Amino acid sequence: MSEQVLDQAQLPKLTLYSYWRSSSAWRVRVVLALKKIPYDYIAVPLLQKKQQSEEYKQFNPMQQVPSLKIETADGQVHYISQSLAIMDYLDTLVPTPALYSKDPLIKAYEQELALDIVSGIQPLQNLNILLHIKTLTNDEQQKLDWAKKYITQGLVALEQKLTQKPLPDDNKAISAFHCCLVPQIYNAKRFNCDLSLFPTLIALDKYCTSLEAFIAADPEQQPDANQL
Amino acid sequence: MSEQVLDQAQLPKLTLYSYWRSSSAWRVRVVLALKKIPYDYIAVPLLQKKQQSEEYKQFNPMQQVPSLKIETADGQVHYISQSLAIMDYLDTLVPTPALYSKDPLIKAYEQELALDIVSGIQPLQNLNILLHIKTLTNDEQQKLDWAKKYITQGLVALEQKLTQKPLPDDNKAISAFHCCLVPQIYNAKRFNCDLSLFPTLIALDKYCTSLEAFIAADPEQQPDANQL
Repeated sequence: MSEQVLDQAQLPKLTLYSYWRSSSAWRVRVVLALKKIPYDYIAVPLLQKKQQSEEYKQFNPMQQVPSLKIETADGQVHYISQSLAIMDYLDTLVPTPALYSKDPLIKAYEQELALDIVSGIQPLQNLNILLHIKTLTNDEQQKLDWAKKYITQGLVALEQKLTQKPLPDDNKAISAFHCCLVPQIYNAKRFNCDLSLFPTLIALDKYCTSLEAFIAADPEQQPDANQL
Repeated sequence: MSEQVLDQAQLPKLTLYSYWRSSSAWRVRVVLALKKIPYDYIAVPLLQKKQQSEEYKQFNPMQQVPSLKIETADGQVHYISQSLAIMDYLDTLVPTPALYSKDPLIKAYEQELALDIVSGIQPLQNLNILLHIKTLTNDEQQKLDWAKKYITQGLVALEQKLTQKPLPDDNKAISAFHCCLVPQIYNAKRFNCDLSLFPTLIALDKYCTSLEAFIAADPEQQPDANQL
């Protein structure tokens, strides 16, 4: 991968609304680090329900992190939410290293794998859903079982896919999928999933988390690390 | 929109694995119809659990519809799943009419709105989740309340977004978001959500469902319509 020289004056000013342990914000942090894009960080403490504040809901009515604030040279301000939409925008803003293959079929596979997590796993195990399950059942164990079931089920499917049809090993390129995988594996560990079911995914996770961009994006490296 | 002449010989042979009432398959059917792409239709009866058959799981380990089978001129066979990945692939295959604006910020907003449904609403109200809620609570009403809550919550957020920041009215262009919205409004009706909360979305739905492509993609027009 050739070293990229960014003219920072040409980039809009970016501010990421994040939470250290949010897997969706984490995906975006990896992309910002991979592309060496400078940004400001604003913590949104989810356990204090700051995502439900009037101020935050103004630009993020879904009341989720992340949001990206974009201030352009002509003074306009825009907000984008939804991690994959932000990641694709950043990929257009700074095309190298690319988040997707140039081959349309490989790109579709990378998107499919990313969406298996973004749409197929993460929404079922996010904080709000788990709190709702606990309220409905009045049983902490049901909440934990729910998270474990959907994470395991989704990762078993991903493991089968990547065993049958590995991603091409183009200089160990990092795709949007890898940015989604690492935070999901972290959650699999949090909820005590049986990691021996996913040897291929665990090997991918191990490779990714050795890279500088993933180290920079790790929850423990964020300004709000370990704050509730 | 100028009439597009497709050279069908240049397109791969496409087969859509669908279910008439699946909102995810429905999104893809709209795109196929918008772009006038010919395809074969194979029904996967979800209530008969055909998505869990060994044959289907071979190419769709997530056990969901839709899947797109792609047979290229050189005899290769590929499968893609996840509706947005399929839609973006079709957008590359047949670029007109485009599913996204050329302006990166408007494109990001269209993706965000689509993902609000694809990741933020639909996964929480799909059939499997609702059956699980019923099993956990042993209460049909809890299942219905769950679906209504998450659909309403998400659509209220979308209504606020589109009121504050409408999509540009470029010749009434249909984006990936519109393809996701119409099936989600159908589900809002099925679960008796209060539609008066979403006047902007209902107006958009009314416009879309008057168009030829949306009529062709409607569940009632599918070969497996009303089959369980």
